[in-house]
Amino acid sequence: MKFDDEDVFIGIDLGGTNVRVAAITGQGKLINNLETLIKANEGPTEGLKKILTLISQVIDQMQQPIRAIGVGSTGPLDRERGCIQNPYTLPGWEDVDIVSAIGLQFGVPVALENDADAAALGESWLGGGKNSKRLAMVTIGTGVGTAFIFDGKIYRGVLESHPEGGHILIDPNGPACYCGANGCLESLVSGPSIALQANAFYNDSRFLIKNTNGNPNLLDAALVFQGAKNGDLYCRQLVDRIANYIGLGLVTIMMLYIPDCILLSGGVFRSYSLMKGTIENVINRHNVIIPADQVRIDFAKLSQQSGVFGAARAAQLLVNSGGL
Amino acid sequence: MKFDDEDVFIGIDLGGTNVRVAAITGQGKLINNLETLIKANEGPTEGLKKILTLISQVIDQMQQPIRAIGVGSTGPLDRERGCIQNPYTLPGWEDVDIVSAIGLQFGVPVALENDADAAALGESWLGGGKNSKRLAMVTIGTGVGTAFIFDGKIYRGVLESHPEGGHILIDPNGPACYCGANGCLESLVSGPSIALQANAFYNDSRFLIKNTNGNPNLLDAALVFQGAKNGDLYCRQLVDRIANYIGLGLVTIMMLYIPDCILLSGGVFRSYSLMKGTIENVINRHNVIIPADQVRIDFAKLSQQSGVFGAARAAQLLVNSGGL
Repeated sequence: MKFDDEDVFIGIDLGGTNVRVAAITGQGKLINNLETLIKANEGPTEGLKKILTLISQVIDQMQQPIRAIGVGSTGPLDRERGCIQNPYTLPGWEDVDIVSAIGLQFGVPVALENDADAAALGESWLGGGKNSKRLAMVTIGTGVGTAFIFDGKIYRGVLESHPEGGHILIDPNGPACYCGANGCLESLVSGPSIALQANAFYNDSRFLIKNTNGNPNLLDAALVFQGAKNGDLYCRQLVDRIANYIGLGLVTIMMLYIPDCILLSGGVFRSYSLMKGTIENVINRHNVIIPADQVRIDFAKLSQQSGVFGAARAAQLLVNSGGL
Repeated sequence: MKFDDEDVFIGIDLGGTNVRVAAITGQGKLINNLETLIKANEGPTEGLKKILTLISQVIDQMQQPIRAIGVGSTGPLDRERGCIQNPYTLPGWEDVDIVSAIGLQFGVPVALENDADAAALGESWLGGGKNSKRLAMVTIGTGVGTAFIFDGKIYRGVLESHPEGGHILIDPNGPACYCGANGCLESLVSGPSIALQANAFYNDSRFLIKNTNGNPNLLDAALVFQGAKNGDLYCRQLVDRIANYIGLGLVTIMMLYIPDCILLSGGVFRSYSLMKGTIENVINRHNVIIPADQVRIDFAKLSQQSGVFGAARAAQLLVNSGGL
């Protein structure tokens, strides 16, 4: 390691809604932590200003200089050029050279990572994947994302691309997805897709009608899980189907990575207890030619902090690789 | 490298039918190469004797001592104990400690690898994947197997297990497979499965009836491909369906590995030209969130020799890791 336990790194978690900046030591102690709304629609110039100010505030509260800065950002990114290329969750943020902007102002090396990769790296360093040589992380919320940490490093594909395990095939008769597939995992188990599937039986479900005051536009995945918990038969059946899809997705991930551990995160897994039985049955059924029962399934442990820890870790790895 | 270009390694490719033994230099020159029928049903004692004799014959034809021996064997294996555990393609070969048997006789380190891993390692070293940092190999024949070589080394899962990308999900309404899935890739595109699917239209296909003399038991995948080539509509439709399945399987592999290169091997790919258009269309359709168009699709280049080259390479890597 080319840094000390007490050296300070800045980790930044940039999402579509919030930006969080934390100062974290070489050994992983959180010293300082600030957060603000990014208000992406005000544009990248305003947004960058906000981020730089937040970094300054975090640094000003410390005595010590910082060694490096890491950014975990909602993608797509162009890591080679250090740019955010995001017309989706950060509208108007195209070709935003965040690495140069931060590097020029603070005079330290800056690492840029996809937010899913950063979160998984944080979990691998200090969270639920601490002792896993092969760590897969699966996040199911508005979208479905995966990351893979191998030997403590982010696994990257050709052109340093980020794997997209949220778009592995589950059912070719499933709905069309923007990824080009029909019936990929995201198209079947993301929050919005769960709500869409519940629409089909909305008029039959007294629970859903009652809890949306008869307005199907108020339907969301959380309500479907609540309905299943409260014994609504339609919601229960849908949750079983979703759990089956998730189990099948985890099995395909196992077939290719056979990781030591799969960490689950994201809003849909808040209802894991309602799906656990079905997911485990699917995995057990496939414990034949791969040791599926040896893959630990667990939750991410750092909750909202995995992103800043992972970004700080990316900054450390950048220093170690000589990028300083 | 702890060995020289001129050092000699033995690579062994042990299949259900043949065993092949080759002497290969540190820089990958094939010096010597012998092959014989393994006759697995005569049992492991006879089989091991045959293998040891073949190794001796290869060594006797050379002046030079050998540095190490590598074995690529049809699985399942217990690599930790150096044993073959195979009641399938090597009936009666259970708990066969091939590593000790060879090591004792020749007094050199012995590496044992799954045959799919060995073949991919050979291709990565000297064949179609020579310059690929991330090489996936997909073999479709009697079964469907995959291997993944990352940074020149065999990627292994938990407990050093071998990934089984032949059993990723394609269609949950597909046929049951011994792996525990319904509609995994192997259940839909292996040679036997293609023949099985052709059975459904056998009586409608004049081509198939004519070329099997009316005996549906003579139906095989090669005949289906020949029928498609000769313009038989039923065969053509099935080949299109198979090509679509294969394309979908390659896409799921891309989503998780995003390799530089996917190498194809095995009997079914002898008819690749009949499937190329459909497979490429499927991949192009998914060139959205991953750079699918940057993944080179190519054939394995070492044909029958990839196994012995890969086994010799495994022996070299064992020497390098200090296992001598």
